[in-house]
Amino acid sequence: MALSGKDRVMNGKVIPDIIVGRLPIYLLALQHMLDEGRQVTSSQELGERLGISSAQIRKDLSQFGEFGKQGTGYNITFLSDQLRKILKLDRVWDVALVGVGDIGHAVAGYAGFKNRGFRISMVFDNDPQKIGQKAHGFEIQDISTLVDTVRDGGIRVALITTPAPAAQEVADLLIKGGVQAIVNYAPITLNVPVNVRVEYIDPLIHLQRMTYYLKE
Amino acid sequence: MALSGKDRVMNGKVIPDIIVGRLPIYLLALQHMLDEGRQVTSSQELGERLGISSAQIRKDLSQFGEFGKQGTGYNITFLSDQLRKILKLDRVWDVALVGVGDIGHAVAGYAGFKNRGFRISMVFDNDPQKIGQKAHGFEIQDISTLVDTVRDGGIRVALITTPAPAAQEVADLLIKGGVQAIVNYAPITLNVPVNVRVEYIDPLIHLQRMTYYLKE
Repeated sequence: MALSGKDRVMNGKVIPDIIVGRLPIYLLALQHMLDEGRQVTSSQELGERLGISSAQIRKDLSQFGEFGKQGTGYNITFLSDQLRKILKLDRVWDVALVGVGDIGHAVAGYAGFKNRGFRISMVFDNDPQKIGQKAHGFEIQDISTLVDTVRDGGIRVALITTPAPAAQEVADLLIKGGVQAIVNYAPITLNVPVNVRVEYIDPLIHLQRMTYYLKE
Repeated sequence: MALSGKDRVMNGKVIPDIIVGRLPIYLLALQHMLDEGRQVTSSQELGERLGISSAQIRKDLSQFGEFGKQGTGYNITFLSDQLRKILKLDRVWDVALVGVGDIGHAVAGYAGFKNRGFRISMVFDNDPQKIGQKAHGFEIQDISTLVDTVRDGGIRVALITTPAPAAQEVADLLIKGGVQAIVNYAPITLNVPVNVRVEYIDPLIHLQRMTYYLKE
């Protein structure tokens, strides 16, 4: 979840962050259906798969246009393509990853990147023992070169997988190099300018979001 | 982010999921301030740290009660304790982790669990080579014993770190054992009953939520 209420405007309408945040989940479910050989789906079926009401799904999608016809449902390929276009995933974004510890190593080797709009294209660490080594095929670069390398590479998107004490400094460097979107795995909140977005991947944050609803 | 609009009621008021979802972020920032030796903060300062407007923070907190006085700010320890109580983090939740690959291994060893309301208490895999081995001090148990072990342990919360094709089956087993909250690292959407919550940790989902806002 993005932190802020920096909701943006589409065709003169403000689209709430929470709706934008659901689109990648719809995309993942649609891709799964395509993998199963399916061609058409409905808001009812999508809703059942995802535990979201079909009315919510129709309302979310209607913010962006008309993607299906009453009674005939959605063409899965068409809807996927449209969602990709809306989310600017009809291209491949190069990603910088900073911090090659346990988590960084696992993320660098994560198979899920394939065909989903991103590729890790550079990997950094500050440990002299690691610099120059390879991690899942990526040469680990010296963090002291980060700002220039990220700027020269036109990188807009980065993953921070450093320990918490290093994360703010790394974020500052990334932003200096032109990064506008950060996925932060370090268990620390980042202080960033208003034009930069941060998503937090911290299993504890995610766990803590659910206990509120638990019945004992 | 939770998927659904299963907003719940507090003191007769429905609290939107998105507000509950921000509380753990506030808690993390407050903990950080405590670590710095601070005692008092304000919605302005919290907002600046997190890139959220102070009005939003005051509005979020006011859903749950009065935690500070106009002009004197919030006592950090008191506000943290209250947020922990609201989120049911004034206890320790035992967590089951299923799937000891790269990601599972990294999560099992994740230092961020300490003092944040959860402890991993059991770890499962289906690989005969792994069962009986140790991962970060946890003995890896046979997934065929999962339902009973989870039920006997009173486990309500679980982490799925299996490959995508196994995740739905694992979720079904966990739910059969009484689990109500799942953090799913597998890049697949899970089909779960209405009383079960799922949070998705998939770097791609998080990346895909931000490109919408990027300027090229």
